[in-house]
Amino acid sequence: MDEAEAIARLRRIATDPAARGLLDDAAVFDGLVITHDSIAEGIHFLPFDPPASVGWKLVAVNLSDLAAKGATPSAALLSLTLSGDGDWEAGFIGGVGAACGIYGLPLIGGDTIALPQGTPRVLGLTAIGRAGARVPDRSGGEPGDGLWLVGNLGDAGAGLELLRADKTATGALVEAYRQPVPLLAAGQALAAHAHAMMDVSDGLLLDALRLAEASGCSAVIDLDSLPLSDAFKAARGDDREARLFAATAGDDYALLAALPADPSTLCLPSGPTITRIGSLAAGVGSLQLVSGGKPVTLPERLGHEHRGNSASPMAGRA
Amino acid sequence: MDEAEAIARLRRIATDPAARGLLDDAAVFDGLVITHDSIAEGIHFLPFDPPASVGWKLVAVNLSDLAAKGATPSAALLSLTLSGDGDWEAGFIGGVGAACGIYGLPLIGGDTIALPQGTPRVLGLTAIGRAGARVPDRSGGEPGDGLWLVGNLGDAGAGLELLRADKTATGALVEAYRQPVPLLAAGQALAAHAHAMMDVSDGLLLDALRLAEASGCSAVIDLDSLPLSDAFKAARGDDREARLFAATAGDDYALLAALPADPSTLCLPSGPTITRIGSLAAGVGSLQLVSGGKPVTLPERLGHEHRGNSASPMAGRA
Repeated sequence: MDEAEAIARLRRIATDPAARGLLDDAAVFDGLVITHDSIAEGIHFLPFDPPASVGWKLVAVNLSDLAAKGATPSAALLSLTLSGDGDWEAGFIGGVGAACGIYGLPLIGGDTIALPQGTPRVLGLTAIGRAGARVPDRSGGEPGDGLWLVGNLGDAGAGLELLRADKTATGALVEAYRQPVPLLAAGQALAAHAHAMMDVSDGLLLDALRLAEASGCSAVIDLDSLPLSDAFKAARGDDREARLFAATAGDDYALLAALPADPSTLCLPSGPTITRIGSLAAGVGSLQLVSGGKPVTLPERLGHEHRGNSASPMAGRA
Repeated sequence: MDEAEAIARLRRIATDPAARGLLDDAAVFDGLVITHDSIAEGIHFLPFDPPASVGWKLVAVNLSDLAAKGATPSAALLSLTLSGDGDWEAGFIGGVGAACGIYGLPLIGGDTIALPQGTPRVLGLTAIGRAGARVPDRSGGEPGDGLWLVGNLGDAGAGLELLRADKTATGALVEAYRQPVPLLAAGQALAAHAHAMMDVSDGLLLDALRLAEASGCSAVIDLDSLPLSDAFKAARGDDREARLFAATAGDDYALLAALPADPSTLCLPSGPTITRIGSLAAGVGSLQLVSGGKPVTLPERLGHEHRGNSASPMAGRA
């Protein structure tokens, strides 16, 4: 079975309201927002990534799900696999500890298991956050809402390509791939106002389509408006090809919010940029891309559709 | 690093009281008991085990941790890996659904990731239960407490040996290995009275030593008293060798409780047997084994010390 079919089967047994139909980044239970994301070697990180960065990333991708729900980090359980490389594991635990420390996420439990030697590592984290007064899901977007993006696009995808070409690559783009920053404060500020919100982990176009589908709307994205960092533009330029790459590369851990008003009227934290990148319109789960006011043909691949942590809302929970 | 060292490093960053020093089967947070256990192919289950039984086991081993804390199952998040075998995955999901249905554990979230083809599966579950009025940990045992065991010992270990010799083996012992039964009602009944409680997953002797160490006591176990099923005795006999096997084989998912009184005065559910198997005495984290009133030399291997889900309290959280 493919992932979509697996999710469909899981949805049949996940009938509790807290499951939100497995259509959201996280479950909401008892005033808590709870998420679990695993990452696998060769799929979500590179075998030669520094182990501390892998530990950091595992924490950050889970915190990004909490950020998308406006939750405040409260506790985590780590699922650690040991493959017999003590230096790697020490580095990994150090990275987990660094991220937990910086973001105020107490590690309260988990488990440790051995894997058969030589098998790819699979590492998981359950992150628990306290829900705010509102917990936006993906399905509340309305025609007329602006689509706003917190953060930049494409940096991590460009960094991954640099690393695939040269294991020793360094710089801002490589850092963006290896050490994503969860946008917790922005998520908390927007959660009170957003009709819908999610994090962008599998590619903007794929994730925006998911939000549109869940909301029963059509999404229109203006390719020209996508926020690109100076480092990205220096490495890949700013033409349509570069912008399509940024819109589909994934691993951004930006936030995508459907907002009824201009967020300049909201009290947002300084730091990450917030950019209007499009809007929702009447329609049924479709996506339009425009540039210079004219329609642009959608690329065949909207994001990490078949890569694992993707392909469906539940699968996309990184 | 070995597991003990990994746990020691994790303990240094897990300083929150909810972590209980990573010395317990589960974390206690906000009135909830939360546990996460992963199982790996070739370590915790056999590649040829029916996939539905693997799904069942993943749920059951997590519920066993909730049982040991007297918690009531409330919600679960599944970490599913897809390896490209749709029939296997469909069977696995069916087994998860069956166990969640029978034990009233709503599936509310999780994630789905692809693994590189041909790599051993790693599957995880986060189980959340509501805490009762008391949540016994491992460290409250006192000299003079009786050590009581709910359930039998050795069935699953004997079943695993049968399967290793013959993939097509069937019967009660094989069932005990593949489909453990979490002792939720007994755990809830004992939690109000137990000074200390834990589930026995890595071998009675190893787990009893852990309870004794955490409680700062000496444990005395009477080999002659260990409860063995008729199926076990028919397959392996009832001599000292058989009893030492049962005391160290693991995968029992029995409950071990340090109780101040005879539990016949408590209101226990009918079904699983409860047997006095020893007592706690003054001392510091040691274990004595007796038979016919005489000391028995401890076997070199007390349980699954280096198998993965073992070797330390946090690692032993299956």
